[in-house]
Amino acid sequence: LTHEINSRSPIGVFDSGIGGLTVLKEIYRYLPAENVIYLGDTARVPYGPRPLEEVKKFVLEISGFLHAQGVKLIVIACNTGTAAGLQSVAKLLPVPVIGVIDPGAKAAVNTTKTGRIGVIGTAGTINSKSYDAAIKKIDKNIEIVSAACPIFVEYVEKGETDSPELVDLAKFHLAQLIDSKVDTLILGCTHYPLIKDLISEAMGKEVSIISSAEETAKEIARLGLSATGAAANGKSRFLATADPEDFKLKGSRFLGRAIETVEHLSIEDLSGSILEIPADIESLVE
Amino acid sequence: LTHEINSRSPIGVFDSGIGGLTVLKEIYRYLPAENVIYLGDTARVPYGPRPLEEVKKFVLEISGFLHAQGVKLIVIACNTGTAAGLQSVAKLLPVPVIGVIDPGAKAAVNTTKTGRIGVIGTAGTINSKSYDAAIKKIDKNIEIVSAACPIFVEYVEKGETDSPELVDLAKFHLAQLIDSKVDTLILGCTHYPLIKDLISEAMGKEVSIISSAEETAKEIARLGLSATGAAANGKSRFLATADPEDFKLKGSRFLGRAIETVEHLSIEDLSGSILEIPADIESLVE
Repeated sequence: LTHEINSRSPIGVFDSGIGGLTVLKEIYRYLPAENVIYLGDTARVPYGPRPLEEVKKFVLEISGFLHAQGVKLIVIACNTGTAAGLQSVAKLLPVPVIGVIDPGAKAAVNTTKTGRIGVIGTAGTINSKSYDAAIKKIDKNIEIVSAACPIFVEYVEKGETDSPELVDLAKFHLAQLIDSKVDTLILGCTHYPLIKDLISEAMGKEVSIISSAEETAKEIARLGLSATGAAANGKSRFLATADPEDFKLKGSRFLGRAIETVEHLSIEDLSGSILEIPADIESLVE
Repeated sequence: LTHEINSRSPIGVFDSGIGGLTVLKEIYRYLPAENVIYLGDTARVPYGPRPLEEVKKFVLEISGFLHAQGVKLIVIACNTGTAAGLQSVAKLLPVPVIGVIDPGAKAAVNTTKTGRIGVIGTAGTINSKSYDAAIKKIDKNIEIVSAACPIFVEYVEKGETDSPELVDLAKFHLAQLIDSKVDTLILGCTHYPLIKDLISEAMGKEVSIISSAEETAKEIARLGLSATGAAANGKSRFLATADPEDFKLKGSRFLGRAIETVEHLSIEDLSGSILEIPADIESLVE
């Protein structure tokens, strides 16, 4: 590698698709000066239903690719990807690697007063017990109640985020968490921030809602790698392994702003070649 | 109603789709002389992602329709339908109504030696805690460990029931149940009997696998309403609210035998009119 990594180097963020853009949205909020390369592996989305070993391979591949772009930090903006590959990538690469699970777990432990934390996510995330392990590592006396809510993803994807039908579904799927009187709930899926208000409404206003996406951005800010010398607004470059137009169209809602340009990256390019990072970081597409 | 109900009257069995055919398969095995009307509400499948109140309405509608056909017993061959509507239907109709949850729960309590039972099903079934409630009603000291495994349904539907990929997925999703050392596992989804061997392999041979589908058939046999005076082989009539050909094609695999004829029933017919049962039960299509 010939790139010199410094505080102006971009952050590499990736997800199986567009869900991780909720993490990028929070990075924009807490660290507006950062340059970012976001990679959505839309050709192989979703990761959740795949064997963990396969997901780990994808995570290693994409992390290697991003590292070759000269990123100063890699963010696995994907719960399944974090559970499957964070530890391996962190060992293999010389740059910091952070996932979405530890930041969410840490914030929840700091927030709870009763010691009862709820976790919701896809079936893969919940059955992996990754949040349970991350929470127990901090405080083994915490009681954890979890529920797989895969149906929420479908509603968010179709843009139905506040229908009465979804309100009913949320009340049903969250019923046991409400009965268990958790005082803190972790949104353990990058899609859920788009229905945070609806979930909060269902849980009751006294329950603190922890967004893993937001906590991950705050964790990055704490790392002290910030692009302090840069202009107020960083630039982002978007790459997708499937249709760029589709990514642009669907991704904007997750990012909360328009996405101007998305480049296509083939799976072959991803696994085989090493792309050059532009010499002038300012040429990166906003 | 002018039908006279007797032991030769058919059993009414229904599900949101074809999954309930695994229950019918077991009815054929334990009660081969029974005549059956099976209704698959394929126009509104799946029930799992719907609000419980809506599912309850469907269950009341279909049960009313089947009752009007002169059935001697109604079987809700659907975990979501059972959770949503069994109690209401049982109160409203003068014939016995049984669901798939209590028989599975009862068999598991009778089987476990360690008092630790695992339950797997869709997210809706698991989050409803219906099996937990049914088990605790019998023995409140039983420890229950559950996991939502919606991905298994997708594999069964696409006919991929023994791929190495599914073996990996099963090991991953069942890991916590294995670690918890449950000695009995309830298949709380009508699709799962098609991958019973694969699940058993993943859990380990010392874990008893309870099929709610099979236990439901055994429960029906215990009711003593059997068509003892009938010929050795009962006849079945199949109704579907969506494409009958699609039902025939996909359903045969769940039933374990060819389905000759499927009648189409519109949602309007279902909710509005009352169909006549053929005077001669033998005219029902096998």
